[in-house]
Amino acid sequence: MGNQFSDLGRRIKDPPISWLMKLAIETPGIISLAAGFTDSETLPLKETLAITKRILNDKKLGKTALQYGSTEGDFKLRQLTSNRIKRLDRADNPGYLPERVLITNGSQQLLYILVEALCSQGDIVLLEAPTYFVFLAILQSHNVFARSIKLNPDGIETEFLKSALEDLKKSGKLRRVKFLYSVSYFQNPTSYTTSKEKKEEILKILKFYEKKAGHPIYYIEDAAYRELRFSGEDVPSGLIFNNLNSRVIYAGTYSKPFATGVRVGYAFLPDELFTVVRRIKGNHDFGTANYLQQIMTEALNSGAYDEHLKTISKRYSQKASLMEKAIKQHFDFTIQYQAPRGGLYFWVALSEKMKTGFKSKIFKEALKNNVLYVPGELCYADDPEYKKPKNQLRISFGYAGEYEITEGIKRLSHAIRSVI
Amino acid sequence: MGNQFSDLGRRIKDPPISWLMKLAIETPGIISLAAGFTDSETLPLKETLAITKRILNDKKLGKTALQYGSTEGDFKLRQLTSNRIKRLDRADNPGYLPERVLITNGSQQLLYILVEALCSQGDIVLLEAPTYFVFLAILQSHNVFARSIKLNPDGIETEFLKSALEDLKKSGKLRRVKFLYSVSYFQNPTSYTTSKEKKEEILKILKFYEKKAGHPIYYIEDAAYRELRFSGEDVPSGLIFNNLNSRVIYAGTYSKPFATGVRVGYAFLPDELFTVVRRIKGNHDFGTANYLQQIMTEALNSGAYDEHLKTISKRYSQKASLMEKAIKQHFDFTIQYQAPRGGLYFWVALSEKMKTGFKSKIFKEALKNNVLYVPGELCYADDPEYKKPKNQLRISFGYAGEYEITEGIKRLSHAIRSVI
Repeated sequence: MGNQFSDLGRRIKDPPISWLMKLAIETPGIISLAAGFTDSETLPLKETLAITKRILNDKKLGKTALQYGSTEGDFKLRQLTSNRIKRLDRADNPGYLPERVLITNGSQQLLYILVEALCSQGDIVLLEAPTYFVFLAILQSHNVFARSIKLNPDGIETEFLKSALEDLKKSGKLRRVKFLYSVSYFQNPTSYTTSKEKKEEILKILKFYEKKAGHPIYYIEDAAYRELRFSGEDVPSGLIFNNLNSRVIYAGTYSKPFATGVRVGYAFLPDELFTVVRRIKGNHDFGTANYLQQIMTEALNSGAYDEHLKTISKRYSQKASLMEKAIKQHFDFTIQYQAPRGGLYFWVALSEKMKTGFKSKIFKEALKNNVLYVPGELCYADDPEYKKPKNQLRISFGYAGEYEITEGIKRLSHAIRSVI
Repeated sequence: MGNQFSDLGRRIKDPPISWLMKLAIETPGIISLAAGFTDSETLPLKETLAITKRILNDKKLGKTALQYGSTEGDFKLRQLTSNRIKRLDRADNPGYLPERVLITNGSQQLLYILVEALCSQGDIVLLEAPTYFVFLAILQSHNVFARSIKLNPDGIETEFLKSALEDLKKSGKLRRVKFLYSVSYFQNPTSYTTSKEKKEEILKILKFYEKKAGHPIYYIEDAAYRELRFSGEDVPSGLIFNNLNSRVIYAGTYSKPFATGVRVGYAFLPDELFTVVRRIKGNHDFGTANYLQQIMTEALNSGAYDEHLKTISKRYSQKASLMEKAIKQHFDFTIQYQAPRGGLYFWVALSEKMKTGFKSKIFKEALKNNVLYVPGELCYADDPEYKKPKNQLRISFGYAGEYEITEGIKRLSHAIRSVI
């Protein structure tokens, strides 16, 4: 019998992280510093119960919550979202209109639909190197090519971006370039945040090359980790640039800061894109579960969400400090890292010749020592123009408790040291 | 500036139902018998609150509910689903294994992913005529062609199916045929249910043509309305046929019977398909919101779900009777219809020369009379081999209350009579 699958069905692969998650579940006593899960101790059980009571004890609100809604999402939630991002950005312009807000099943669904809406097979997108690895899987399954742009602690290297775009122009491929994807706050995996100045520069560069591309080139800001900030100042989004923001797609989520079991994300979309993305979402699911939307509406409206942000900020700050202390104590070999100010990850580079991949001695030793991390090379696209570093690792303090953090880093140091 | 969209982004259209929904929302005093919404009066506010309390007052359960889960879904929910369908089917075989169950965001998401997994551009699928119109939109956006098979009150006409397959064989297109899609219980829009005998016959016919197609041809049973039965006996699914069920994809949902704001659907998938569909779902969203899954798990486990089925069965039975009474009283012109035994719809055919489409006099008169219905022609694929009837309408008693049902039918009768 032949193959019944579509082109996409044939291309789709299991993401490497599935294997890590399976190991984490099936190995007794293993400590996973690999998962991107959020903290479990601070999950808002009481708050969600209180909110649910208010919703379901109100007959009108309760009925709304348990019935279908519209594809674009609840208008009150879209308004609250518009107000929230305006407040965070300390700015206001037509880019923040609630009519441009679309509610999604976490920001992941938006990323998927954007690829569907913008990319045909053989198209090209620009990515930070390293980048969010699940996004790589979406691109691969759609046969979309990635061009890697070196990421620095304040955002991508703009000279690198320009030279990649020049190169694409020369080879006649500029018309295939659809967007630049950036996890612009506490990036997964590096925890780097793109500066305001960098955002403006990026938008100007993209705008410049649009003329030659013959169509808009969007800047996708995946701000999934923005509200997981525990120190330093917030940075405004690209939406503040009134003359450039018609190319900004801002994707956010309430799931990571509040509760990942309550999947509600949102996006600010340019008008022409809004319609197309809404239609595709209509075919996916007609709209995000209204019950979850009403919970988030009430959480935002009552202040419970903001109150909860204080709790998790404190908690992640403590866990990040603990992890840094453990790293300083146990990683008594050459490493490079930058302490995160938000998000869920430490991004650690070992000395250049060391290898951290699934087949490396370090990974095998880590497994023997019952500890898991994400090999850094998984976070780089397959791009012949960009050599993947092999010596990095992503270690998460998101889900792990105090004991797991200290003990996990200790075990990892044993694994690494055994190879030195 | 050129077009930045993908092939799919360029093809995507607004579904006609959006316009109807917009009219329904924006026109004061309008009665919509068009929407496929479920009953609002019987929504389980109290039950959902009780369940939520039990979940969130239990620290362990509460944390699970508010945290990420796995892509395939909660194992307990998959087990309960497996047991439930075995019980409904009064059967057991490996086709019902919980490992074959995938939890989705309503059954709609599954339909979307199936098209992604199985259909490349230019592939062909077999559809009931008429069929569920949102499925037509998914196919159209993926550039998949539809072949219509005449639907009778006990399922599709199998001679018609055979002759369509013969025809496809002769024109060398059989290798492009991927599946037959059937809404097998209280179909949207006709409310027809496919008989057990018909299912077996269909599976045998598809199996026969597989050899010539060179790959499996699946039978998708969309059972979204199965549990909205209010009279007559249940019919077993195609999963009961032990020797044929490796080609059955059974899609169900807990949303329509329980609460459409709590979007939880499920599917039983053949092994080779399960893996591919799970991977695609992983890229969509990593898994359905765990909070909703835990609510449904508890609703099933506690008996609240079954208790609720009794309530809605009674309610829909009453509303369907009321609508039939109103039709008998007010539709004093030639019509054909069959009283539904479940689901949400009356499917009414006027005399052959009458037209019901958006541009018809009847539709315009209905609008003037402040009442909406779904023109039957929207439920037929664009298939040059199949002439769309123009004289049918879908009228829903799902969402409408008693007054809306009686008054809506009365208004509709005025609209139709004004044209006769």
